[in-house]
Order: sequence, then structure tokens, then C-alpha cells
Amino acid sequence: MTIADTTLGAREQALRGRADKVIPGGMYGHMAVRAFSGAHPQFTVSGAGARVKDADGREYLDLMCGWGPVVLGHRHPAVTAAIVDQLQRGDCLDGTAPVAVEYAELLVDTIPAADWALFCKNGTDATTTCVTTARAATGKRKVLVAHGAYHGAVPGFALRGAGVTEADQAHLVRYEYNDLASAEAAAAEAGDDLAAILVCPMRHDIKQDQELVDPAFARGLRALADRTGAVLILDDVRCGFRLDIGGSWEPLGVRPDLAAWSKAIANGQPLGAVTGTDALRDAVRSIYVTGSFWTGAVPLAAGLATLTELRKGEALPRMAQSGTRLREGLAAQAAAHGFAIAQTGPVQMPMLSFAGDTDFRQVTAWAEACVERGVYLHPWHNWFLSAAHTDAEIDAVLERTDEAFAALR
Amino acid sequence: MTIADTTLGAREQALRGRADKVIPGGMYGHMAVRAFSGAHPQFTVSGAGARVKDADGREYLDLMCGWGPVVLGHRHPAVTAAIVDQLQRGDCLDGTAPVAVEYAELLVDTIPAADWALFCKNGTDATTTCVTTARAATGKRKVLVAHGAYHGAVPGFALRGAGVTEADQAHLVRYEYNDLASAEAAAAEAGDDLAAILVCPMRHDIKQDQELVDPAFARGLRALADRTGAVLILDDVRCGFRLDIGGSWEPLGVRPDLAAWSKAIANGQPLGAVTGTDALRDAVRSIYVTGSFWTGAVPLAAGLATLTELRKGEALPRMAQSGTRLREGLAAQAAAHGFAIAQTGPVQMPMLSFAGDTDFRQVTAWAEACVERGVYLHPWHNWFLSAAHTDAEIDAVLERTDEAFAALR
Repeated sequence: MTIADTTLGAREQALRGRADKVIPGGMYGHMAVRAFSGAHPQFTVSGAGARVKDADGREYLDLMCGWGPVVLGHRHPAVTAAIVDQLQRGDCLDGTAPVAVEYAELLVDTIPAADWALFCKNGTDATTTCVTTARAATGKRKVLVAHGAYHGAVPGFALRGAGVTEADQAHLVRYEYNDLASAEAAAAEAGDDLAAILVCPMRHDIKQDQELVDPAFARGLRALADRTGAVLILDDVRCGFRLDIGGSWEPLGVRPDLAAWSKAIANGQPLGAVTGTDALRDAVRSIYVTGSFWTGAVPLAAGLATLTELRKGEALPRMAQSGTRLREGLAAQAAAHGFAIAQTGPVQMPMLSFAGDTDFRQVTAWAEACVERGVYLHPWHNWFLSAAHTDAEIDAVLERTDEAFAALR
Repeated sequence: MTIADTTLGAREQALRGRADKVIPGGMYGHMAVRAFSGAHPQFTVSGAGARVKDADGREYLDLMCGWGPVVLGHRHPAVTAAIVDQLQRGDCLDGTAPVAVEYAELLVDTIPAADWALFCKNGTDATTTCVTTARAATGKRKVLVAHGAYHGAVPGFALRGAGVTEADQAHLVRYEYNDLASAEAAAAEAGDDLAAILVCPMRHDIKQDQELVDPAFARGLRALADRTGAVLILDDVRCGFRLDIGGSWEPLGVRPDLAAWSKAIANGQPLGAVTGTDALRDAVRSIYVTGSFWTGAVPLAAGLATLTELRKGEALPRMAQSGTRLREGLAAQAAAHGFAIAQTGPVQMPMLSFAGDTDFRQVTAWAEACVERGVYLHPWHNWFLSAAHTDAEIDAVLERTDEAFAALR
């Protein structure tokens, strides 16, 4: 089922050979395809709507959306126009461009828990800034974090060990996601040194079936924060603007004190944000955080254009509809082909696993078969849908996934 | 000398009023102008070459270059063309865009100490990745860092206290810049737990006169690293591609094991990079670092275009020539007006201070007088020149600085 390296396209092979010389491992981080596939192209050269092309001209229906950022579709015309318009004025200026104010105003108007916004580049900048703000606000140090939760690939949050010291995470106290008793126990362990509770809107740990939040757990964390004076931080980096435009826990009526945003907020342009409540305004002013490009105008213009599109109200229902169509189709195909699968998490952020496939061999073979047939998806990281995923695109996906199931059998 | 807020332009005032509501402090980090001036506009709306405009249409000769990133001039046509070209193909894709390979190849070809390159967004991403790599390579924890040196506004390197815990910097050991004995003492203190020596190409601490590196100090650090097995990390974020295209210590013949790059490498687009030697290839592969936008194609295309321009060989001599012209002009003006000033650091990154002006009142008044006359510069952070600073632009600057000196008297 696996395509050997030698059957990859000629341009892909040539690029891999060149990359091996000048980029560590040929590629690093989440994009290093050799870590999860023998079939996925390492290189993609272009994107349009819900499709991407590899270096050899093969087109893929895209279920990864750039690993999350692309929420309106690749090269959305309104976002591209905003980028080009801002480029014609300026990008990295001496002062802030007015678009920063316009975009902050629109975020505050859109997100009920937001009274202010601060901009950065990475999701990790946002989660780190939230934790620093919470510590400044409370004068305390301990931060509750779920076992296995991804909040950024920096020493302070890293899940892997190389190069990370014990001191980097000395003040993290772990709890089990969706287990309120464990969070309360962690808070008790932190005692009077508790600064913050950091939590994702759902459980989306790597190589795990996704798990939606138990509303009682979310409400319980809010109550725990209120009772202890801890700051409740929602890490909405991965889910933000896909599940609910007001914040991923807004449908539950649970509002965080601080929220971290990135990925989808600028449809692929590099941007992160922190939003927070008035109560934390002084604390965030008291810390010193900054970066050379944090108020760069072009990504902010892309953010403003993206949010303006999202507020029109069509994109989020579109993703939910496409996600449901995809989930139902995959379920029927798996059943028809005799596979026991699980589809987990919200439909807009699909994830598929095979029963008993603890070493991921079956799902990897299936994912590779999908890629061979022109559907780009991941074996053990959640996928992402965008507003460019029409019913017709989902049907084209399903045609190919059905062949992949057949090939797997 | 200070312009009261009420005399700022009407659009500037309106933007400040709006920003105060939705952005902490109206602006945060290095760009928060109220922290250093009553005259600087917080908002700039456009840039072209060596000039920027504020919201009220006032034009400034720009000596800050976006606080460093703009090395070729605002809206350099070759960079803008590369951005637009890449935008028309794709930005944040599922795989890496081939431009990442082309750019890594060009970096490796340009920088003698670089056998590979890894991309990120912030300068802080780069310095953090260097430290993590060094720890992975050596299995040790301690990192020597100069007192007062800026390596990023994250808890691991922060110079200010709010929200930062002792654990965040538990493994930093401080030395005095340009004092080899202090670095050797710090290494002795680290003992057999020494992972890295982190150093900037010159001393550019905030609110301090700049200080060029003593070549014997640079060579001494290299020897100290070799003797102890520590990794020598050059933080070339601020100086990179302004002083020497091969790395800021290349003229000294001192090559680091790892170097951190950002700011000027993509002429304002958000990009950082780590470069390193073959000896550290396995170590950098062993750590897990990544970010959603780290291989975003548009900033990489800007980086490739910027480096291609820089390699033509005109930009760096141009900045040196303009910097010398500016320094000589300012020196003559100060003398003529009876002021004792110091101009420190490399001419391409000017800094001016007044003798005995320990509270920065005199330099602030002078900087405000410059801004009023249409020259954008900073009272106590170094300035930056770009390749767009022609002799004629420098002469226009000098005409106005002379008036500012006269007004100060």
C-alpha cells in the first residue's frame, strides 16, 4: 500500500534530495511527512479553494487546510485583495498601522469574552503571553495543564524531551481532560500558588481519538477558577473560528478570562492573538511582550478580511454541513467495506481511526491510499475543513475514500 | 519641546482614543510610543523607500526602518513582486513550498558557518530553538548570557519581571559583555553542566550606549566553547544582514555553531531562521520545534528575494556609506551647537546620546524635535539604516537634525 520513495514524482524526489542537504531531516516539525507517511508529498506548490497541487502537478482535495490556518479556502479573493492592498501601503512600519485598531475592534465586537486584543505571530506566543499575564495578575506561579495537551512546541509546554529541562515546566501541574476531580486535585496541589487553568476547547492530543468537552467539565473549570482566583485560559488556537465565531466554548456559556488564538484567524497569514477581559487589562499592560513583526500590517489586514468574511455567517454553517456530509459518507463506506472505525471530535475538524489499530498501521495505509487517489489527509492528526468545501467537493472526496477503503480490504 | 497629546494630528488622536479601548495600553511592547515620547505618532499608515507617513499625512525620513526589519527600504519592488507572485500560487499549504528549499540553499551558500537552515517566525523562536538544540546536543543545561542582553521577550530570556518566574531562567548564568574573564568565570560556575554560550554580535542593550565587540573577546568565547564542548550561539537577530552578509562576526573570523536570524532577513515580512553546522544536524533533528506558519510560503519568498538583492553587493556598502555620512554630519552639528554627544555602535545601526544625560531628558527632547521636523528616530534604542538611504536622504535628515539641535539650545 505504501508508495516507496522511488515511486514519488520526479520533482518531489529532486526537492527531497535538495532539502536533505540544507534543512534538518529534509523537513522538521509537524510538516515532516516521512514521520507519518510513505505516500504524502513533502512539497506542495499551490492551492486554490479546497485543493492543493504537488510539485509534479498532481492535484489533491485538501482535508488539512494547511494544518488549520486555511478556513475560507486557499487564496480566498477577499483575503488576497486585502493583503495586496495593504502591501501597496506598507507592512512593517515604525508605528502601528491603523488596521491593528480596526481588527482589534472587530475581534472585541465578535468575541463576547474579549474586551481587548493583543497581536503576535505564533499560537505559542499567544499561550505563553496568556500564562505570563495570569502570573502577573495573580502574583502566583502554578498553571494547570491537561496531560498530553498541546499548547506549543516551546520548552515551557513541550511534550517531548530533547533539549527541555525540568525547570522549564517546574510550575505546570497536570490534570486529566474532562475529569473535574483531577483538575480540583491539581488545584489543591498548587494550593495558594495557583495562577491559571489552561485548557483546550476539546481534547485534540496527537495520536488520540478526539474528545469533545463535557459541558459540566467546562462549567466546573470556570467555577474552580472563580473559587480559587485563578485565571481561566482557553487555548483556542486550533479550534478558533471553526466551531463558533464567538469562541469555542461560547455555545456552552462558559467564558474564559483569557483566550489564545492563531491558525485560522488570518486564513493562512502568520498571526496570533490574545483576547481578555477588562479585569486583566492592567496585568497584560504590566508584562513586557513583543516581537518584531507582531503588529506587521499585512497579516493584520488578512485577519481583518478573514473575520469580515466569517461574520457574514456562511462559512461556519458551511463547514458544519460539509463535515456532517463527510462523516456520514465515511461511516457508510467503512460499514460497507466491513471496517470498524471511529470518527471523533467536531465534524469541522474530522478524525478517523480504525478499531484496534494501536500501531496506526491500518489508518496509515488507508491515508496513503487516499493520498494516492488525490485526497490529502493525515493518519493520526485531526483534519480541517474550510468554507471552500462544498457538497460537490465532499462528494469528490468520498468517491476516492471509498476506493481507498476498497484497496485496503 | 514636547508636543502635548492635544497637538498631535486629529487622525492620530482619534486612533489613539480607539486603540485605548481595545488594545492594552493603546499599544504594547517596543512600539508603545508613550513610553518614550510625547511627539512620535503611534500610527504610521504607509512607507516608501526611506520614508514613512503618519495618519495625518505627515511624512518622515525614517531612521528606524520598522525597528530593523526594513533593510532594502519600504515596499522594495523586488520583494513586493516576490510576495505577490507567491500569493498567486499559495501561502500556507499542506506540505512545504519549494521556496523553502531554494531559500535554505541560498542561506547556506551565503553564510560560511551555515550547513543547514530551519525557519520560524520570531527572533525569539530562533534564539529559543538554538538553546534547545544546544541542550539536546550536549545533554547539559546551563547557558551563558550577558547581563542586560536582549534575546527575546519570553519568560526564558525576559529582562523585566512581571509574570516571569525564577524557574524560567534557572539555567542562565550571566557574564559581562566584552569581559572574557567574566565569561570564563560563568563557565566555571556552570561546570560540567554547560550547554551553550549565547552572545550578540555587539552590545546593544536598551538605554545603553552601544558597544562594538572586542575581537579578542569574540575569539576568546570561541576558544572557551571549544575547550568546554559548549555550543557557541550568535544572536544575529538585530544585526544580521546589516553588518556583514556572511554573519556579523565573519569579518573577525569567528564562526558560531548556531546562529539566530530574524528582523531584516525578509525586509519586513515575518520570518526567523536558525542556521547551524553539520556537527549539530543530529541535535536539531532530535528536538521538536514547529509552528503553524513556520514554512508559510509568502514570507519565505520575501526572504529569498531580500537575500537575492543583498547578494548583489550594493546594499551593505550603501548602508555603511550612509551611516558614515550621518555620523559625521551629526558630530559636526553637535559640536557647532555646543553639545557633547556620543555616537556608538556600527554606523549602519546608529545611536546617539548626550553626555551626562542619565535620565534621557535631553536626548528625548532632541528626538521629539527631530520628529516634529519630520525625522523618525528613537531617543534610547538604536536606529537602523536601509539601502534606500541615499546620500540625498541623509542630507535631508541632517538639515532637520541641525534645526533640532538649534531648537534644543
